[in-house]
Amino acid sequence: MADAEDHDDDRDDSADEAAVRAANQAFYDAFEARDLDAMSEVWEHSDRVSCTHPGWRTLRGWGAVSGSWFALFGGPGPLQFILTDEVVSVDGGVAWVTLDENLITADMGGTVAAINVYVRDGARWRLVSHVGSAVAPQP
Amino acid sequence: MADAEDHDDDRDDSADEAAVRAANQAFYDAFEARDLDAMSEVWEHSDRVSCTHPGWRTLRGWGAVSGSWFALFGGPGPLQFILTDEVVSVDGGVAWVTLDENLITADMGGTVAAINVYVRDGARWRLVSHVGSAVAPQP
Repeated sequence: MADAEDHDDDRDDSADEAAVRAANQAFYDAFEARDLDAMSEVWEHSDRVSCTHPGWRTLRGWGAVSGSWFALFGGPGPLQFILTDEVVSVDGGVAWVTLDENLITADMGGTVAAINVYVRDGARWRLVSHVGSAVAPQP
Repeated sequence: MADAEDHDDDRDDSADEAAVRAANQAFYDAFEARDLDAMSEVWEHSDRVSCTHPGWRTLRGWGAVSGSWFALFGGPGPLQFILTDEVVSVDGGVAWVTLDENLITADMGGTVAAINVYVRDGARWRLVSHVGSAVAPQP
C-alpha cells in the first residue's frame, strides 16, 4: 500500500508483521494463563483503549478494561483457545489482526471472531482495541 | 500520542477526526439506504479488507465483503440505526471508530457494539475492517 502517506517504506515489513504476531500471541498467552501482569504489559494504558467481550458492552479506558480482565480471570472454568485464520495487517504505526478464537471449554465452547488493533510503541506493539464477536453455531 | 513514530504532527488532528467521522457516517448512510454503490465507495477494494457481521464468520477480501452487503441489502426488513457512543481515534494514517449500532427494527432490535478501521487514502479515509458484536440483552 505504498503512497504519499506511507512513511515506513524503509522498515522491514516482515519484521513488523512478526512483532505484531508476537504481541498478539502475548495477548492470548496472558489470557489463557489468567496473568494480569502479563495482560497489563500487552495493553496501552490510556483513555483511548477499548475492549468488547462477546455479548458485553464496549468498555473504554484502561481502568475499565483492566477491571474486566480481573473479573474474567476470577471466573470459573478454563480459558483456552485454538487460534485459527490469523491475518495481520500493518500500516505505518498501526496494525490490526483478525482471527478466530476457538474456545475449548465445556460450557463456553464455540468460536469468537476477533479483531485486535495495535499501535507501535518503540520496539513494542501495544493493544489499543479488542473486539470479540460470537459466531453463531453452524447448522 | 506524540512520539518518535508520529509523522503527522503537522496535520490538523481535529480535521482528521472530522474526516474519519464523515467516512463513518457515509458507511452507515450507505448501510441504511441499502446503496451498494455508496457502500463500494466507502471501502478499500483490496485483499486485506475484512468484515464480521454479528454472528457471522469473518469475511475476507473485497469480493466476499461486497457479496455480503449485496445479500444483506436484498434481505427483508428495514436496516435502521441510532448510533451512540461513537469514539474516533486517529494515529497517523490509520483510524479506528468504536460505537454502538442500536437497531430499530421489529425483528432485529438490539444493540451491536462495532469497530470500524479506516486507512487514509489521500484526502479520503477508506474502510478496511468492520466488526459487529451483538450485545446481550440487559436484564
